[in-house]
Order: sequence, then structure tokens, then C-alpha cells
Amino acid sequence: MAARAGDTGGMDIAEQTISLPEWSPIIDAHMDSDEPIVNLVDDGQGTYDAIFIGGGAAGRFGSAYLKAAGGRPLVIDRWPFLGGSCPHQACVPHHLFSEAAALLDRERWLAGQLWFRPEGELRASILDVIEVFRRGRTAAHAFMNWQTKSQLEVEYILNAAARALDAHTVEVMGRRFQTRNIVLGIGARQKPLDLPGASLPGVFDFATLVEELDYEPHRCVIIGGSKVAVEYGSFFQAAGCQTTILTRSPLLRTANLHHVDEDVRRYVVDGMRQRGVEVIEGGSPVEIKGTDRVEAVIARGPDGEELHIECDFVFNGTGETPNSDLAVQWLGVKVGPHNEVVVDARMRTSVDGVYAVGDLIGAPMEMFKARKCGMTAARNIMGEPYEFDFSEYPDFLHTTYEMAWVGLTEAEARERHPNVVVIQMPPKGIGHDEVPLPLCEGTMLYGFLKPELTGFQKCVIDGDSRRVLGFHHVGYGAKDAFQYLDYLLRRPEGITIDEMGQMNELFLNPDHFIQLCRLRAGRQDLVDL
Amino acid sequence: MAARAGDTGGMDIAEQTISLPEWSPIIDAHMDSDEPIVNLVDDGQGTYDAIFIGGGAAGRFGSAYLKAAGGRPLVIDRWPFLGGSCPHQACVPHHLFSEAAALLDRERWLAGQLWFRPEGELRASILDVIEVFRRGRTAAHAFMNWQTKSQLEVEYILNAAARALDAHTVEVMGRRFQTRNIVLGIGARQKPLDLPGASLPGVFDFATLVEELDYEPHRCVIIGGSKVAVEYGSFFQAAGCQTTILTRSPLLRTANLHHVDEDVRRYVVDGMRQRGVEVIEGGSPVEIKGTDRVEAVIARGPDGEELHIECDFVFNGTGETPNSDLAVQWLGVKVGPHNEVVVDARMRTSVDGVYAVGDLIGAPMEMFKARKCGMTAARNIMGEPYEFDFSEYPDFLHTTYEMAWVGLTEAEARERHPNVVVIQMPPKGIGHDEVPLPLCEGTMLYGFLKPELTGFQKCVIDGDSRRVLGFHHVGYGAKDAFQYLDYLLRRPEGITIDEMGQMNELFLNPDHFIQLCRLRAGRQDLVDL
Repeated sequence: MAARAGDTGGMDIAEQTISLPEWSPIIDAHMDSDEPIVNLVDDGQGTYDAIFIGGGAAGRFGSAYLKAAGGRPLVIDRWPFLGGSCPHQACVPHHLFSEAAALLDRERWLAGQLWFRPEGELRASILDVIEVFRRGRTAAHAFMNWQTKSQLEVEYILNAAARALDAHTVEVMGRRFQTRNIVLGIGARQKPLDLPGASLPGVFDFATLVEELDYEPHRCVIIGGSKVAVEYGSFFQAAGCQTTILTRSPLLRTANLHHVDEDVRRYVVDGMRQRGVEVIEGGSPVEIKGTDRVEAVIARGPDGEELHIECDFVFNGTGETPNSDLAVQWLGVKVGPHNEVVVDARMRTSVDGVYAVGDLIGAPMEMFKARKCGMTAARNIMGEPYEFDFSEYPDFLHTTYEMAWVGLTEAEARERHPNVVVIQMPPKGIGHDEVPLPLCEGTMLYGFLKPELTGFQKCVIDGDSRRVLGFHHVGYGAKDAFQYLDYLLRRPEGITIDEMGQMNELFLNPDHFIQLCRLRAGRQDLVDL
Repeated sequence: MAARAGDTGGMDIAEQTISLPEWSPIIDAHMDSDEPIVNLVDDGQGTYDAIFIGGGAAGRFGSAYLKAAGGRPLVIDRWPFLGGSCPHQACVPHHLFSEAAALLDRERWLAGQLWFRPEGELRASILDVIEVFRRGRTAAHAFMNWQTKSQLEVEYILNAAARALDAHTVEVMGRRFQTRNIVLGIGARQKPLDLPGASLPGVFDFATLVEELDYEPHRCVIIGGSKVAVEYGSFFQAAGCQTTILTRSPLLRTANLHHVDEDVRRYVVDGMRQRGVEVIEGGSPVEIKGTDRVEAVIARGPDGEELHIECDFVFNGTGETPNSDLAVQWLGVKVGPHNEVVVDARMRTSVDGVYAVGDLIGAPMEMFKARKCGMTAARNIMGEPYEFDFSEYPDFLHTTYEMAWVGLTEAEARERHPNVVVIQMPPKGIGHDEVPLPLCEGTMLYGFLKPELTGFQKCVIDGDSRRVLGFHHVGYGAKDAFQYLDYLLRRPEGITIDEMGQMNELFLNPDHFIQLCRLRAGRQDLVDL
């Protein structure tokens, strides 16, 4: 049955020019309404090249690419905005919290010096920072709705739940839309805590935190050792909430966080401890106790001992699981061992005409993967056999630092290559407190007042081929560069120490890789620096 | 006459292992002493491949490269440390001041919100920040002395004035050293102010500021419109010292700052004005008045009117001039119209066997150029015909922001290409206050509390070849990436919007170039975004 005109009951914006400032009140008004926002050309008649169910990063970029390539996409989301969880509950608040953490951390280390307040005078509030996020988040939503309609010219239906009836039919708003392909991008959700007391008030995850926190927490237990655990834990601690991370595996040594060298890991985790975070590795939770709200976490410690950790705040940092149940129910797509929809390198599921993208297909649940999955599906749907391999990629996380890495660790490199050369700062054998390097924007005050806090960086090189195998950085300001270092490292010819040494650095550069490579590049027989 | 052993009178460290922590007191003790620090193999007997006069960035990197390549270098500096003016008076304090400016600026904009103090409670002191620098700067010096001896194994004589007697003989400490080549890297100095009153107390430049400032300035006039004027002026203003910049040319529109688009320039300069900096473009100074210290600058305004600007602090921001007089006096090398020693692309001067490197050869007086000049001289001396073209390069400066750019401006691109496409954030026609983008580490709080302050970025593309012609960024955290963007832009095949769109971004990435390119890359007929 073809979609029929005129019976959507939604807010029809197809013919309207909605300016960017006009979008925010529209979205706000729809947050508590079930009226769809409908942006359809020709009222959705005819057949789409692809209907994207889910307008998060994958669906939005996939539909935009498909439209740009001359196709006709429709993107549908249950929220009244495009962009998905990133600007609403995930990457954006995480970055706001991490910026707050870095600033608060600097204020504490430098307390009483220069213009910084004396120790103890700084009072921060987690709740206030979350309030700032809640009040402002619609601006990003507005931009995505505006851009997707006005610049990218993509059709969409927002604030409406879609259902795939078969590989070529999607039902939404009681109407059926025809399509050559369906692209599923319905994301992931926090894994529930399988513990007594897990549903007590005071137990939060990254999503409920920004939606529901209504008191100022003072004592936090984080269960799990995911990136989110590290990032949110660093923020809670920096904001003055004493935080314990209870994790089975050593922090930053899990399957999803590959390529972290032990010395880098130690600098980061020791740094968290130095800032007051209690990290219990090898511990496991037994029960959450409390009456009106959480009061304690009972856990088993690394030596089997029982731990009783009082708290007023429990945070679930165990990671996410794909929302594949609906995909199976609708279309019977094949699902893998981690609950992920199984796809090939072209994002095709086991069902002909059905693609899956983004967090729905499992780890890594990262932005680049979501967006590029969307693009990959779009290109294949438009007839271009395009493959996307995301088994290797640049990665990053925040503590009170930015940590970024790509390629092999020193340990991995030594397993594979007989002649590994390492160029690092501080150099091996020199303590972090002995040298105020690396030094750059973000670490200048530390360099002069707390040299052990300036960071750590490392470049791993195959001394025979002279190719760089891995870059690793803890500090500030280098994350952006890792996008391009990833490209250089992975192109067929790679990047050599010699080419690095011939680049034009912007000194003081957050990563000192270029100049350090240049200091050694003259040698035929490379050695460490 | 060969160098004779045993009569240096200096501190002979050749056979000593000096640990990194031991270096700082040695340097401090030599700051007020004329005892040379002597690190010679075989007491400097025999003939060197090159003697580098000047151990700043160019000399240090040149000598290190030459040593790595199997040659024998000697580097001589009049200061008791290697690294030159950068860590002592130039790049390093500038970065410390700019970090302070960015932090203070954020505190002022966000005063009274979250944990930030109410307006008016923040008190910063320029003198205190300079004191922090003075107290800490030896640590970087120590590292350079340590690294150059212990890791790079380069011979040096420090805290001693050298003189070239001819192209193969250098005199220092009353001894003569023989060399196949001389590499001159004796830098540049502040251009003097040619004005009545220029020698009054209270007139400073970047070097005397860190050496001599002994009072807290409250009202500053900067004469000149160089990078230093913009950078130091932004710091003075952020620290609470009301600052006026008096410049003949429009700020950021001088010959040395090419490739700055007018809209980017306006965002930056208007931003400085918004923060209270008074910028008088088209003005010229007439006289500095004062008795015990400067009290006012008398100037001619853009319309010829006389200006009387009261102040207690005058800063010379007119730029630097090469120290070529000594080079001419010693060796008769040819000098160009800007007082620079003339070299070819191999860094050879007009005198056989004499090379010149770094700031001595003129603009751009940037770190990458100094270091790579040194490397270029070293390679040629070691028999490799290697050329270095620094006519194009990535560039940056600080206000309270980091500003980085490489390649063509939009205006330059439109002069040369018929089909120019621009991808920028905020998009054309959208005000900075309407959208909290770009958003990343450093602008997260602004994004939610002061969206007009999040920055500005632009990617200029040739729509026909699909190659990126220029990248431009104002904000935080992108500077490091511009080193690699420069490489990608300038390699023979360049970088296309399609390749950009296939990279792996680390979201929220300070430059949003990758994902913005991906949103348009699907189109055959590229259009703006």
C-alpha cells in the first residue's frame, strides 16, 4: 500500500523554510508531544532508495550521502531531532564533562598560585554542569534538523516510531512507505546491571544521568571499567565527588581498548589515582544496598574479601549492547554473539535489501564508525561496491587528560618486528617530574609549576623499514592530529621517520613527533630517543 | 692554527656523565659567569665537518642531524644553554602567556556561572606570570643540554662568544677551531623603536619583558602589528591590563601573515575588541612621553588626528630584524633588503663553505623553518644535495584563541579557480551566536553558555579537481593537526574532499573538516556547506 497524502496528522514542514533559530522552540515543544515532524517531498509518494530507521550519526550521514549521490532517502527517528544519542545523552555531554574535569583539575593542582583560588575554596557541582547541558542541548539538535533539511535536502519524519514490515516496507504514523532498501541504525543501550538493588534510586547510567539526576552526589561507585567509566569517573572526582571505580579487568586493558601500552596505561591510571579516584581492579559487585536511595555497594575485592563501599550514587559503566531485538523481530536479521546485527563489509545484513549501521552492529561504538557505516550503506545502495573495514582505527578517551592513540603499542611492535625503535617524551629513564615535556597549549602552567603533569607521548618505529608503527599521546591538544596520523599510518606506503622529519611543525606542538623524528632521522641505524 | 688542548679555562664536561637534574644548577650558576661549558671530543682537535655558530633551534637541529648522518659538528653558543631564544625569551613564554590568556578569558566570560568566580573577583598579575616563567625556564634549558650531549652526542661550547675568522676557522675562548664549513645561526633581534622616548623605562619588547619587568602594568600601548603584538596584547588584556594596539596596517593583514581570509580576520580582530583590546589600525606613533617611566604615547590616528594615549607600559611589537651585521663583518656574506643573510635553497650563503640558517636568513621567523634550515645545511654539508622551500607553510598565532591556517584563503582561491566550494562552520549566513559550533575540547562550556565564542573554521575546495586548497581554523585544539594537513595539502597529489570524507574522525574533533567533507563528498557537483 502506497503512502497516502494528507493523513499524517504531523507537523508538515516540507514547504516551510524554517530558520535555524526557529528550530529550537519547535524541538522543545515536541519533546513532550507525540506529534511527528514531517519533511516529505511529494508527501512520501513513490519508492525510496533507502529508508533509514534511526536518524543518529549513522542514519543521518548515510541518508545525506545517499541524497548527495543522487538517491532518494527517508530518515525516521523516534526523537524530534536528528543526530541521535550523541548530542542528547552521549558524546556531547561527555565532552562537556571532560572539559569541566580538565579545568577543575588544573584549578586544584595550581590552587593558591597565580590567580587560582586557595585550596578548598573551589566548589563545583555535578548537578549544575548537567543543568547547563540540559538547558543548552537543543541548540545542537536544532542545527542538525536545520542542516539536514536546508543544506542536505534530506526527507525525514521525526518524533515517530517506525517499524519495518518487510525489507521494502516501513510503517510510521500509521502509513506505509515503500523502499528499495532499509538501513537499520537503531543504536545501542546501556547494559543493565544484573545485581540486587540495581533499580534503586541513585543508580544511573550515562543516559539517565543527564535525564534524571536531581541531587548533588558526594560519594560515587562506578561499576564497570568501560571508557564511560573512566571518563565520567574522572569528571565526578574532579567535581568533588569522591569516586570509586570497581572493575573486573584492569582499567584500560579490555578487548575494546586495544593498543594501549602498559607504561601509557600506568601513567593514565596512576594519574587518576593521584587525583583521588579509587580504582579497584579485579573487583566485582555483589549487591547495591539502600532504602530510599543507594547507600552502599557490596563487592568482592581482588583477593575475595568483602568490600562495603558507602555511597549516595552508583554509576553503571559496564558498556552498551546493541538494540538488535527489534531488528530480529521485524526482519529476522542474523545476530552475533554480542547481540550485534551481523553485517558484511558493505553493511549488508543476512536479509536481502536490509543494511545495518552504527552501534547496532557492535563495537567499536564510535562516531567515525557510525557515520562511515552510513556512508558505506549509501554507496552500496547507489550501486558502488564499497567496503569499510573498521578493525583498526585511531582511538581516544578522556580522563582529566586527552589520551589518543593509533597503531601498534611498543609491546605489540616488539612481538612482530625484530628492530623496534621508540621515540618518546619524557625519554625512557627520565621521570615525569624531571622534565616539563611535552609542553604545549594546555600544559604550559603545569610545565612551570607541576612538571610531572605535562603528559606522555610515544612514537613506535620499525627500525628496518623506518615506518612508524604507532603513535600514542596523553596530554592536551593532539587528538585532532590523530585523525590524520591514522590516515598516514594506514595508507599503503605508511609514513616513515624520514617523512615525519621533513614536515613543518607548529611549535610548541602538542605532539612533538615531527621534531623528535627529525632529531633521529639522519641516522641510518635508528636508535631510541 | 689547530685548537690546543687543555687551555680552555672552561668547565670541561666531555668525560662527565651529567644527569638531567644536575644540569639546572650548572646552567643557573653560569648565567652570571663567563666560564664556558665545554663538551669536546678529543679536546676539539682535528677538523670539524661544520661549526654551528649559534645553538638555537637551527644550530641545535642542524648539528644533531649532521652528527646523526655521520659527520662531526661543533655547536657554539653565547648562552650557557642550547635552544636559543625560544625557551629563554620567545616561543615558550609566549605559549605560557597565551595559555594564561585563554584561561583568564574563559573565567571572565563565564564569571558567576558554575564554579567560576563572580565578575570582578578574578585578579591576575602579568608580573606573577612572568615570575613563574623566570623561575622555571632553566628546566627546558637543562633538557636541551642533556639531550644534546647524552642522547645526540653533539660536541658543544656554551657560554662563549664565537667569531668566524674565515670560512674554515672559528675563534672561541681564545682558541681556533678548524672546520670544513661554518653554519651561521645567530638569529634576530627586536627592531628598535625609532621614536623620541623609546629608551624610557617602561618600554619593553618580548625579550626585555621577561628579563626586566619589575612592576605591574595597568595600561599598555603596543606599537606595531606583528604576531607578537597580537599575542602579547591578548595576554596583557586578559590579565587585566587595558591594552591599545597601534598599528599602521590592519591587524593580521601584513606581508608576513599571508593567507588570512577577511571573514576569519574579522572574527579574530573583532573578538579581540570584544575583549576590550583597543585596536587602532592606520595609526602611527609620534613620541613616547614620560619622566621616570613612560606616561603616554602620542600618535597620529587614521584620519591624521593627534592621539594622546596615557599608559604605564609600552610594548614594542614591530617585529624582528636578522643579526646579519656580525655575519657581514666576519665573512662578508651578502645581505638582502630586509637585513637578512641571502641563501639559496641549500642554505648556502654567497661565501663558499658558509651556510646561514634560522631567523638570520629572514622571514618567516618560525620554528619549523629554523630547524629545517639546520637540517638542510647539514644534509648538504654531508654531500646530499637537499633543498628546502619555505615559501609556503602552515601558520598559527594566539589571541585568546588558537588560530591556524594553511593553503589558500577563499579570496585567493576564487582568483585562481573558477569553481571554488567552501565548507565552513558556522555556515555562511548563520551568525556565530546562532549555533554553538564548532564544538570540542576548549569550547564546550562556551558552546552551552556563550555560543558566539566557539570559533570559526573553513575548508576551501577546488570544485573541479575536488582538491582542498586551504584549511582555516580559529578555536582550540586544532593546531597540531595543521602540521599534517599541510603535508597532505602539499604532497603532489594533494588531498581531495573524497579522501577527507573517508578518514576516521575522533569526534568531537576540534576541526570538523572530515565529517563536513563527508556530508558533501557524495555529490558530483560540489556545493558549499
